[in-house]
Amino acid sequence: MSASVLPKALAFDVFGTVVDWRTSITRESAVFLATIGRGDVDAAAFADAWRGQYIAAMIGMRKSGRAFAVLDVLHREMLEAALRERDIDPANIDAGLLEDWNRAWHRLDPWPDTVEGLTRLKARLPIVTLSNGNVALLLAMARRGGLPWDAILGAEVSGAYKPDPQAYLRTAELLGIAPGELCLVAAHHGDLAAARSCGLLTAYVDRPTEYGGAPAPDAHYAQTWEWSASSLTELAGMMGY
Amino acid sequence: MSASVLPKALAFDVFGTVVDWRTSITRESAVFLATIGRGDVDAAAFADAWRGQYIAAMIGMRKSGRAFAVLDVLHREMLEAALRERDIDPANIDAGLLEDWNRAWHRLDPWPDTVEGLTRLKARLPIVTLSNGNVALLLAMARRGGLPWDAILGAEVSGAYKPDPQAYLRTAELLGIAPGELCLVAAHHGDLAAARSCGLLTAYVDRPTEYGGAPAPDAHYAQTWEWSASSLTELAGMMGY
Repeated sequence: MSASVLPKALAFDVFGTVVDWRTSITRESAVFLATIGRGDVDAAAFADAWRGQYIAAMIGMRKSGRAFAVLDVLHREMLEAALRERDIDPANIDAGLLEDWNRAWHRLDPWPDTVEGLTRLKARLPIVTLSNGNVALLLAMARRGGLPWDAILGAEVSGAYKPDPQAYLRTAELLGIAPGELCLVAAHHGDLAAARSCGLLTAYVDRPTEYGGAPAPDAHYAQTWEWSASSLTELAGMMGY
Repeated sequence: MSASVLPKALAFDVFGTVVDWRTSITRESAVFLATIGRGDVDAAAFADAWRGQYIAAMIGMRKSGRAFAVLDVLHREMLEAALRERDIDPANIDAGLLEDWNRAWHRLDPWPDTVEGLTRLKARLPIVTLSNGNVALLLAMARRGGLPWDAILGAEVSGAYKPDPQAYLRTAELLGIAPGELCLVAAHHGDLAAARSCGLLTAYVDRPTEYGGAPAPDAHYAQTWEWSASSLTELAGMMGY
């Protein structure tokens, strides 16, 4: 499927859409768990538990009136909670090791089609992030994985976490274009639904293994998007790039 | 000269340091002036008059309590003022032409050493903008000129115009590093002095033709910087890249 109106810029969700967080976090957590003598813990389940608090953390951030905290800080809180759930006291873990473990989110691997897809899309349109990740995290990830962003935008720059409308609208404003000229590219129906309600164009990229084959938590938001592709390279082809 | 402590990231002033605003604005203004039947106006003097209001506009912005306005808006006000000084009423000029003229700042040419210098520096360290330019302007300029930024930061993202300390400190914060781990690269002694007062490292790049051979308005801030080079390629060599 493809829309007749092409966007003036593409904004990308990152975790799950551009990078495979589950494989990377599982692999790194297995090493860290072994290092602290808990190689018995299922690393994939640990990764799911760590990431599983994400939606609640975002909603809690928005509703609590708490001062804006960057994702690195929230990831750390979520890591400590996931450890406690397994009767591991974070206070007994070396501070440097905990910090390095938390930074596993800076070292996520791109999906196999990501770098080629982004590079082809960038040849014609500006490509920016629209992620809840903080700038330092996204910059480190981009340099390690070769993600050729034109600009790193998102929660920290707009001052709002998705799905707050401000996150989408402020990104269009920063790019100097109307919301309807910006297309969100995401593997998540909930993210796309929020973008659409702000007037953005939408492009869905299917990442069936993001949750290890488990159903996506936001599948109930599924609808017909302007574009729908199985990879970023396929999306590039659909958009004529 | 070179410092023993290397930074963890490089933040670049853009106008004058990375791009040659005067040559580009003069060339474009000559065309626009001819189009409106005023080919008699000295285009280089017009470019100087347009840019000449820059410092006053920044200071006025900071002191007035006016809500933050992006540089595209300030450039437009400065353009109209420069026209009125020459007895040209902007209200008599086609709106699309005026808008396009103002966007000449999105189309500034890099200095000849810029792309190679940035590319070499980027191979080792993150390179970001620390400019009073807005994101849309800097992104368009980067795509046109091939400037390989890792991230586009600066006034609009930090919410403060240089030389407000917040502009420098917030950039370091966004990168997740201490002010003393960030190095400002700039052709302007005033900018570097403000960065140093915030604890940043400093690298001066000499651009003797920035003002067409006229003295720099901030020459009185000159001092010994951690690095001093005649080009970005020379700076790359000094930093061992």
